[in-house]
Amino acid sequence: MPVPGPGYAITARLEVPASAGAAGDLTVAVGSVGGVVTAFDVVEAQTATLVIDMSCNARDEAHAGEITRALEALPGVHVRKVSDRTFLMHLGGKLEVQSKVSLRNRDDLSRAYTPGVARVCQAIAANPADARRLTIKRNTVAVVTDGSAVLGLGNLGAAAAMPVMEGKAALFKRFAGVDAWPVCLDTQDTEEIIRTVQILAPAYGGINLEDIAAPRCFEIEARLREMLDIPVFHDDQHGTAVVVLGALRNALRVVGKSLTDCKIVVCGVGAAGSAIIRLLGSQGPGELLAVDIDGIVHRDRAGMHANLCSIAEMTNPSGQSGQLADAMVGADVFIGVSAPNLIGAAELETMAGDAVVFALANPDPEVDPAIALQHAAVVATGRSDYPNQINNVLAFPGVFRGLLDAHARDITDAMLLAASAAIADVVPEPNPSFVVPSVFDAAVAPAVAEAVREATRTKDVAAV
Amino acid sequence: MPVPGPGYAITARLEVPASAGAAGDLTVAVGSVGGVVTAFDVVEAQTATLVIDMSCNARDEAHAGEITRALEALPGVHVRKVSDRTFLMHLGGKLEVQSKVSLRNRDDLSRAYTPGVARVCQAIAANPADARRLTIKRNTVAVVTDGSAVLGLGNLGAAAAMPVMEGKAALFKRFAGVDAWPVCLDTQDTEEIIRTVQILAPAYGGINLEDIAAPRCFEIEARLREMLDIPVFHDDQHGTAVVVLGALRNALRVVGKSLTDCKIVVCGVGAAGSAIIRLLGSQGPGELLAVDIDGIVHRDRAGMHANLCSIAEMTNPSGQSGQLADAMVGADVFIGVSAPNLIGAAELETMAGDAVVFALANPDPEVDPAIALQHAAVVATGRSDYPNQINNVLAFPGVFRGLLDAHARDITDAMLLAASAAIADVVPEPNPSFVVPSVFDAAVAPAVAEAVREATRTKDVAAV
Repeated sequence: MPVPGPGYAITARLEVPASAGAAGDLTVAVGSVGGVVTAFDVVEAQTATLVIDMSCNARDEAHAGEITRALEALPGVHVRKVSDRTFLMHLGGKLEVQSKVSLRNRDDLSRAYTPGVARVCQAIAANPADARRLTIKRNTVAVVTDGSAVLGLGNLGAAAAMPVMEGKAALFKRFAGVDAWPVCLDTQDTEEIIRTVQILAPAYGGINLEDIAAPRCFEIEARLREMLDIPVFHDDQHGTAVVVLGALRNALRVVGKSLTDCKIVVCGVGAAGSAIIRLLGSQGPGELLAVDIDGIVHRDRAGMHANLCSIAEMTNPSGQSGQLADAMVGADVFIGVSAPNLIGAAELETMAGDAVVFALANPDPEVDPAIALQHAAVVATGRSDYPNQINNVLAFPGVFRGLLDAHARDITDAMLLAASAAIADVVPEPNPSFVVPSVFDAAVAPAVAEAVREATRTKDVAAV
Repeated sequence: MPVPGPGYAITARLEVPASAGAAGDLTVAVGSVGGVVTAFDVVEAQTATLVIDMSCNARDEAHAGEITRALEALPGVHVRKVSDRTFLMHLGGKLEVQSKVSLRNRDDLSRAYTPGVARVCQAIAANPADARRLTIKRNTVAVVTDGSAVLGLGNLGAAAAMPVMEGKAALFKRFAGVDAWPVCLDTQDTEEIIRTVQILAPAYGGINLEDIAAPRCFEIEARLREMLDIPVFHDDQHGTAVVVLGALRNALRVVGKSLTDCKIVVCGVGAAGSAIIRLLGSQGPGELLAVDIDGIVHRDRAGMHANLCSIAEMTNPSGQSGQLADAMVGADVFIGVSAPNLIGAAELETMAGDAVVFALANPDPEVDPAIALQHAAVVATGRSDYPNQINNVLAFPGVFRGLLDAHARDITDAMLLAASAAIADVVPEPNPSFVVPSVFDAAVAPAVAEAVREATRTKDVAAV
């Protein structure tokens, strides 16, 4: 059962009798059904009655109803209205467009708009590289989705994907000063998505693909990288891979193992799993096995699409077959980016000593973290209520900050690996509960950006 | 010869001898070659030398060079650097994306992003109309161009159109609080433009087409209006038509004539001219003639494309032919949206008494305004250095404010006419030099928005 969290928080406006015990009664009532009171504000105080806004965290919608009924059942208490704080936060959307120039008078207008702007347009027409100097391209990233794989919710479409893309844009600004704009495409045709992004690209300094279903996402990313002169990054792939590799670097430090000696099992070969395998594979791990719903991936398995075939080429050289449990025997590292509750104590016990378990399925991991901790030396999840949260926010803002600053035209594995090392190195002394920095650690994005800028210099892929 | 203006302003950083007469010498030098000093800042004062930033308005690039040389020629003066103030204003672009929600801690993050955002996405998937409540669609307009007709400069392409679209977005925010985003399309294929806008539409509450060449713009607008459930407005057409009709309403008040008795000549049948003719035609003018580079438009003229044929159907019922000069004989109103210097005193003299002349070609009007004023009762231009500037800024911000507020799904002539009357009525007592309000009149956008909202109510085209 999930714990009550701020993702499901309500504010109830209550009329209560103005008695000494009123506040205590309310808190007890909320607690009695498992809610957590987070704030308590008196809005109006009259002689006989108080009006109180009481904010509580709940587990889910049903639980919020239970809390409301517990409050209503108190003698003399009347619930005027219950607001969902998450929905309140989203009213009117989460982004706005601001002018960076002031338009106070005619002089301002004639420089920012006609007639002065004409010369700026002509300068860009004469020298297209000037777009990075004289337009928002310099600092702006498109957050592109087709709404086909929104969070873990599936194919919700373009309009329903907007709140996620707006949130992503807000994170880009908050953590790295990058201007990002949600581009939600009302098509799920691979060719149309590619062509649309190509048509939109001139205004942007980078493309962040997001929540596009696999295997379509691989072709879209590969083709766009080929055709565009700005970096294309699929966060579900590369963002996750960067943070996982960073966390793994520190986890291996903690257990005193070297990547080249480790047997690593990656469970889940969607966007995230495939990217993790590719980036890990480039680092020469001892042994690398990919497992999906049909078991261990190997060259001779029937019915594999292009992406799986490519994964089979770069893993499992001895051609093992079998199920997840078979793969885990003797593994030093388990990385799950798949589905809830796939393994338990039995599988964990077959792993090598000082095992590392990253169980990243959201919201419910591949294994209960409490059980994993009994068998593994280092455990990480995607959740904020356990130590070692693997969160893409550690990667994408700094990665694009670095790419934009460098006027990068491309993104390479060297840059991703540099970003990953930078995230790891923000943690000065890794320990089992601290292999990745906090998402609010202000040192992360600048360190990642600097590492990416440095990698663009050495790889000579930055534009002039 | 144009007068020096802020669209071409430079700031020169100068080292000058620290003498009493230094400032005076500099001002005289700039003035001697026709420059206008607008600011004078001492940056550093040493014993023998002053460092001064001197800002001047110039006519054009050559003139800026002339001013620089005049300063350099002064004894002891050294020009360190000359900056173009328009380019300085554009460095890094003119827009930024801001988060409207604060992201200070994990609670904020879990509401604005995962896991809380998932419920907001699901709510929109279940009820798509909620997108207007829970996403930026509520207040956001796409400013869409293909870069094919950028200002008067022609086909500069998508990247070079960005400074104009960014400026437009800045004006949307400044004058009506509308969030607008530049969408510059790297295609000039009609079908691709239509399809791309359709694919992008879910995120936006309205589409503002801009600087798309005629006649392509007519089909793009008509087809998008047909297929989308948000209003589509082509500013070069409808924005201009709204402001022209508003100005004409007041001009006819000034001369005491009624539209139904007037002979009106519209010169130029591109985007602006066609829209003016359509909107004017719906108001029952006495006589309406359209003139283009091939003369008066009439049904039997050879080689007309679809738009011209449609214009021929709604003008010139008696089938007159001839050139612009023929059309102008006896005209009460001349509206030019065409090219510089097409008419002079001779043509103006053949107009009816108390003539109204709107010479709107930019930057150089169809007739020198000084000459027009000798023959006509009311003269308007597109320029800010004469009275009666016809500027689209009077229309588009308020029009979209009203459409967004009303959740309008469509835009009708009734709304455009309401906007036009609202602009006119902001001027309490029109006179020959004051038929339209100033672009900085803060009453305009709210009045236009209210008129549009009212029109959506009566026309029943607003969404729930």
